[in-house]
Amino acid sequence: MTQPMFDRIALIGIGLIGSSLARVIVREKLAGEVVISTRREETLEEARSLELGDRYELDAAEAVKDADLVIVSVPVGASGAVARQIAPALKKGAIVTDVGSTKRSVIAQMAPELPDHVHFIAGHPIAGTEKSGPSAGFASLFEDRWCILIPTKDETGSPAMEALTAFWEACGSRVEVMEAGHHDQVLALVSHVPHLIAYNIVGTADELESVTEREVIKYSASGFRDFTRLASSDPTMWRDVCLHNRDAILEMLSRFSEDLTALRKAVRRGDGEALFDLFTRTRAIRSGIIEAGQDVDVADFGRSVVRGKSENAKS
Amino acid sequence: MTQPMFDRIALIGIGLIGSSLARVIVREKLAGEVVISTRREETLEEARSLELGDRYELDAAEAVKDADLVIVSVPVGASGAVARQIAPALKKGAIVTDVGSTKRSVIAQMAPELPDHVHFIAGHPIAGTEKSGPSAGFASLFEDRWCILIPTKDETGSPAMEALTAFWEACGSRVEVMEAGHHDQVLALVSHVPHLIAYNIVGTADELESVTEREVIKYSASGFRDFTRLASSDPTMWRDVCLHNRDAILEMLSRFSEDLTALRKAVRRGDGEALFDLFTRTRAIRSGIIEAGQDVDVADFGRSVVRGKSENAKS
Repeated sequence: MTQPMFDRIALIGIGLIGSSLARVIVREKLAGEVVISTRREETLEEARSLELGDRYELDAAEAVKDADLVIVSVPVGASGAVARQIAPALKKGAIVTDVGSTKRSVIAQMAPELPDHVHFIAGHPIAGTEKSGPSAGFASLFEDRWCILIPTKDETGSPAMEALTAFWEACGSRVEVMEAGHHDQVLALVSHVPHLIAYNIVGTADELESVTEREVIKYSASGFRDFTRLASSDPTMWRDVCLHNRDAILEMLSRFSEDLTALRKAVRRGDGEALFDLFTRTRAIRSGIIEAGQDVDVADFGRSVVRGKSENAKS
Repeated sequence: MTQPMFDRIALIGIGLIGSSLARVIVREKLAGEVVISTRREETLEEARSLELGDRYELDAAEAVKDADLVIVSVPVGASGAVARQIAPALKKGAIVTDVGSTKRSVIAQMAPELPDHVHFIAGHPIAGTEKSGPSAGFASLFEDRWCILIPTKDETGSPAMEALTAFWEACGSRVEVMEAGHHDQVLALVSHVPHLIAYNIVGTADELESVTEREVIKYSASGFRDFTRLASSDPTMWRDVCLHNRDAILEMLSRFSEDLTALRKAVRRGDGEALFDLFTRTRAIRSGIIEAGQDVDVADFGRSVVRGKSENAKS
């Protein structure tokens, strides 16, 4: 029998990401024991009934005792409080990481709370769906996705860094090391602003008098529905992201708005050439995304395949 | 043997919509003969090699001769020219319709060109994908989608209106009658502005210096990739939509921008309550869309199912 990667892994928070981790840890036999902790009793019971771990603790400090790897998967606004709570109970030499979507804030919240005798390496798996809660997770969530790691001390090449990298690779991910500030800029562009824009357009539709909600729903297949997926993501998580990556988000939003002003001008002036140019230029990025295996290469994200009604042109 | 709905259907334009119509017409046996016409010889040859019709004509006037139903599926900017071209050849009593995404402009372009002895009923099937061309079509594209019809004379309850309604129902759609101006407002909100916003954010990403295109591609699964689908749609079609539904698009873009300004202010002020409120309010529309059968009820639009790697939480 091969030795598991870690004797004990503690998962603090058991939402979409935590519960997906629980599942892949079991599938890949990455831990001798998985201890799950979450603040709400109801959620902990849900995790228990899904048999996601070996032990269940309401008290996070209790859960991290003797754990070799502690993964904090909570809304980023709660990172500091969790760090404070678990700090006294952490085993010497333990690896502490997180999965939060903003990194400067999480590091600023957690690093001062954690004892020197642990390895704190911030992390962010670039994977997710619009669903939340323990039942939303699945073991393949991290496959072919990137996980960004941000060592908070000089951990380059350290055994802790190597172990955490091996862990994410065993989950199916590829690992990239990045500086926290750059992470926050990149994610503001590829994730935070797209979510805000999606929330915004759905909010606009919700408030409009000239078009009814019933009409929006009926005719949503013409484009609008694509935005409603992101706009149905977990409100607590996204509120926290906005509060904790404010500067980068505002910078990207301001770039987006400038570009939108130019686009409005092109529409107002009837500048077909400028419009055609933009609409052509944007196609390359999608090809790149598909080539990189970051999206499926089927029409409509494969919805018609899922509906079981696909009749491919070539069939 | 049952009589087909129409003896002869002429399809002018054989892109995504035209070629999907060709396929469903054959599948449902809706026509004795399908005649296909398109301006570019190469495209016509592609249609021929896909065996989409019974006859192929480069000359649209030739194609509509003796046709009982003529469906114009071209970029909306070309509607007037097509109407002018086919007008002299149209059979008395023929139904002429289109599938364009803007209706006031199409009617203004086509109606004056068409003879009084035909029934011109403008139409818009609310269905599509980001792909284009004859090979992109599939017979089930219109299933469970809405088709909006806009009679240009008083066709309420007329045999032509009934026949066209029956045709779209046979294609799997539900039919709604609407006034052209209202159509253009609704579609500006649910389709045109979403496409423009998607093109815009992808354009912003493309031009940014602080984040590389390689990074955008790698981390796109965190939200961005959802926008790239719409932003890879046909540039000619979307240029024409912008040029031909300008007023409604500018109005909706202005509402969107106002709301975005308020959202930016909430982020800047760290107004967690306002953010949480918006992020909660927007969830209802997605539930409505799923209940109405206008999107699939699986995480991530079912991408992981398509990738064949889904491990549902309940399994």
